[in-house]
Amino acid sequence: MAATRIGIIGSKGRMGQAIAAIIETGEHELAGGADAGEDVAALADRSDVLVDFSTPGALATNLHAAIGAGIPLVIGTTGLTEKHHAAIDDATRAVAVLQTGNTSLGVTLLAHLVRQAASSLGPDWDIEIVEMHHRMKVDAPSGTALLLGEAAAKARGVSLAEHTESGRDGHTGARAEGAIGFAALRGGTVSGDHSVILAGEEERITLSHTAENRRIFARGAVCAAEWLIGKNAGRYTMNDVLAL
Amino acid sequence: MAATRIGIIGSKGRMGQAIAAIIETGEHELAGGADAGEDVAALADRSDVLVDFSTPGALATNLHAAIGAGIPLVIGTTGLTEKHHAAIDDATRAVAVLQTGNTSLGVTLLAHLVRQAASSLGPDWDIEIVEMHHRMKVDAPSGTALLLGEAAAKARGVSLAEHTESGRDGHTGARAEGAIGFAALRGGTVSGDHSVILAGEEERITLSHTAENRRIFARGAVCAAEWLIGKNAGRYTMNDVLAL
Amino acid sequence: MAATRIGIIGSKGRMGQAIAAIIETGEHELAGGADAGEDVAALADRSDVLVDFSTPGALATNLHAAIGAGIPLVIGTTGLTEKHHAAIDDATRAVAVLQTGNTSLGVTLLAHLVRQAASSLGPDWDIEIVEMHHRMKVDAPSGTALLLGEAAAKARGVSLAEHTESGRDGHTGARAEGAIGFAALRGGTVSGDHSVILAGEEERITLSHTAENRRIFARGAVCAAEWLIGKNAGRYTMNDVLAL
Amino acid sequence: MAATRIGIIGSKGRMGQAIAAIIETGEHELAGGADAGEDVAALADRSDVLVDFSTPGALATNLHAAIGAGIPLVIGTTGLTEKHHAAIDDATRAVAVLQTGNTSLGVTLLAHLVRQAASSLGPDWDIEIVEMHHRMKVDAPSGTALLLGEAAAKARGVSLAEHTESGRDGHTGARAEGAIGFAALRGGTVSGDHSVILAGEEERITLSHTAENRRIFARGAVCAAEWLIGKNAGRYTMNDVLAL
Repeated sequence: MAATRIGIIGSKGRMGQAIAAIIETGEHELAGGADAGEDVAALADRSDVLVDFSTPGALATNLHAAIGAGIPLVIGTTGLTEKHHAAIDDATRAVAVLQTGNTSLGVTLLAHLVRQAASSLGPDWDIEIVEMHHRMKVDAPSGTALLLGEAAAKARGVSLAEHTESGRDGHTGARAEGAIGFAALRGGTVSGDHSVILAGEEERITLSHTAENRRIFARGAVCAAEWLIGKNAGRYTMNDVLAL
Repeated sequence: MAATRIGIIGSKGRMGQAIAAIIETGEHELAGGADAGEDVAALADRSDVLVDFSTPGALATNLHAAIGAGIPLVIGTTGLTEKHHAAIDDATRAVAVLQTGNTSLGVTLLAHLVRQAASSLGPDWDIEIVEMHHRMKVDAPSGTALLLGEAAAKARGVSLAEHTESGRDGHTGARAEGAIGFAALRGGTVSGDHSVILAGEEERITLSHTAENRRIFARGAVCAAEWLIGKNAGRYTMNDVLAL
Repeated sequence: MAATRIGIIGSKGRMGQAIAAIIETGEHELAGGADAGEDVAALADRSDVLVDFSTPGALATNLHAAIGAGIPLVIGTTGLTEKHHAAIDDATRAVAVLQTGNTSLGVTLLAHLVRQAASSLGPDWDIEIVEMHHRMKVDAPSGTALLLGEAAAKARGVSLAEHTESGRDGHTGARAEGAIGFAALRGGTVSGDHSVILAGEEERITLSHTAENRRIFARGAVCAAEWLIGKNAGRYTMNDVLAL
Repeated sequence: MAATRIGIIGSKGRMGQAIAAIIETGEHELAGGADAGEDVAALADRSDVLVDFSTPGALATNLHAAIGAGIPLVIGTTGLTEKHHAAIDDATRAVAVLQTGNTSLGVTLLAHLVRQAASSLGPDWDIEIVEMHHRMKVDAPSGTALLLGEAAAKARGVSLAEHTESGRDGHTGARAEGAIGFAALRGGTVSGDHSVILAGEEERITLSHTAENRRIFARGAVCAAEWLIGKNAGRYTMNDVLAL
């Protein structure tokens, strides 16, 4: 079997470079990269699948190239608006597109397990989410922590914003019923640890993810790209890659 | 609404006593207890549901009492054989019966999440199960660890016995592909901590359960009993209580 | 050897009752209890050591009783002011007195280890303190977390108040150099878990304490009382009990 | 101030290369490397300190070069025998030599804290050591786990060999009094996690080290080299670097 040829759009960005490095050490073939102003259609023609970590402004061109070449597209670009999502929906009538805000397989699974746990155990079990990242991170909670909180809130059928208890400090009073708590640790060079604790009467479930380094996001994107080849036209998510 | 009246068969055993204590501090009503040789039918008549933590030898009588009173029965008795299971199956044509080897809600959920995770991630992710119990425990791995290992093996469609790596010590060689590893810690007064680790390329998922004390098994039994009231005749498991 | 006779001042309070329960299940003898207005001197006469978890207002009387009987005294009473500490200092010329705000052996050791670690590793290693307690706790961080933070700050020769980062939420900016971070988790029935993380370049040390339940404080008080018997007049702390 | 010039003996080995990489991204200057048969004396002449991760056979030459240049030497070479240690002792009359089997700062500190904890808490607290490493590791327990076990045994004044319980599996019976337990987890790409648990009555202390990757050993060697410059002739250990 010939190696899968993967084309990277936004190949000089941090994620693009990380994806190229993963491809070069694995069983896939790097079809090449395209960056701002470069010919994506030509890249598409020599690729089996495209991975896009560029900018929202380039989305229309990228979708067009994928359709022209008849190949699937993984989109990890951030900052997409409603307009971009509509363009993706249009494109999915012609090709397979997987769009996601988080390409980690582990985080994708963890979010699913959190949804399952929050739904089964019910609101009597208190949910707390704690994460640790390196000392340079400037915001809290992390995007992944919020994604996990959303999974829990959705499972309970409530709004996360209305049930968040984040950054407890001082006289907080007892925990609010149904609250979803967040705590952020910062230090050293930690790539990203997340734990979701469900605390009931005298027992606790803890669901955790540890990223040994940030290459896991590139690895997950490559995994998604390979999985997407041969799929019917349509819109997909990371959950589909894991058959969740 | 009147309080649920729970009758305990095997009320003087360790679990029976623990269940009575949970009922007395909660919203339920203790209908009474029956032990070896006592009148279970009379107990059934004044109960809304029975909980049986007695002996296999008493099973036929207990099923008969439940059927006679038309009430459901939770069976936590250990040591059941094929013959006993056949008797339970017969009884479930008349009443609702929930039989289980582990009444903890948290462990039940954990096993389900392990099955889901092992199934989604596939055999490239290594599975390790580590548990800690008090210094008096005489066997390893714990029954709950084995239950979690079975969940993982079943999700992978393999035999646990053929893939177990337990108690590594000395020159073990590299980890076998597809192995499910077990490790047992013993010390102090720990009620029971279990973690299932799924370790992939540069990321890990850890799914854990912590029992603060052994009352959680009694609590889960009471929860199952309450849930079982009003259910159709049939056979149920703890998974049903959690809608898994 | 005759059993140690322990007298409890404030025997009807939560701690007093817990101490009595520990004594009754152990090798010691409960000499009796004294509460507000009762005769502490008589209790002292039939005790080998006194344990005081009463009120600051009773301190003078209690010290007097210990001196009168020539026996040592463990003081766990909270809310002591400078005046009370002066009275204790006076008493320690005649008898052995151990005064402490935290009677847990584990927490006492942990604070010592944190001091050692913070001092050896220096300020390039970031310190984070995370704790989890039950859902009813109304303040954050916990007193024990602050005690651990103080140990770290003292080891670094800085003021904790000036270096605290507690309850991160929103756009926090990068971690401040030399900061000591605090995070509080709340949920379920957790008795008290504390972890101090020292995060350096690509490695981390984590020092943790888990309380399975709150009896550990009573147990530590009894341990301190037994240790104090036969000691020379003077003022002692829990560190002395552990030979730290 | 001029940058410290560090010379690496065994520069083409795994550790030698890792040390060179650390030096090149830091504030130090790489004086150069010497490998089998190359001129160590010349390297010593243009270095402020030497770091030796070569072979026992080269030790005499390396010590001689350090003495000739009047510069200190860090020795991380493994497989040293009594004869080599005698040669090191001789050399330390002329120059400062730090010899160690583990250059991680974190592990060095952890071993010290374990010694302190085991000594203060006494044998009523059960000690368990659990470690996780990548799936390719062929032996268990890890060398670091044994080093931590030795620290605990020494603190208790007992022989580790006589008190080891490693790889529990099957009917083990209750934990032996005074045992030091070991458990090994294997999976994924884990660089090395170690935890020492001290489990008492209803409370536990856990002392852990996490290596995000194996560069920490190179980093610690560089740190030791810098620290050693200017020290009096004599023999040193990693404990001295951390002022333990």
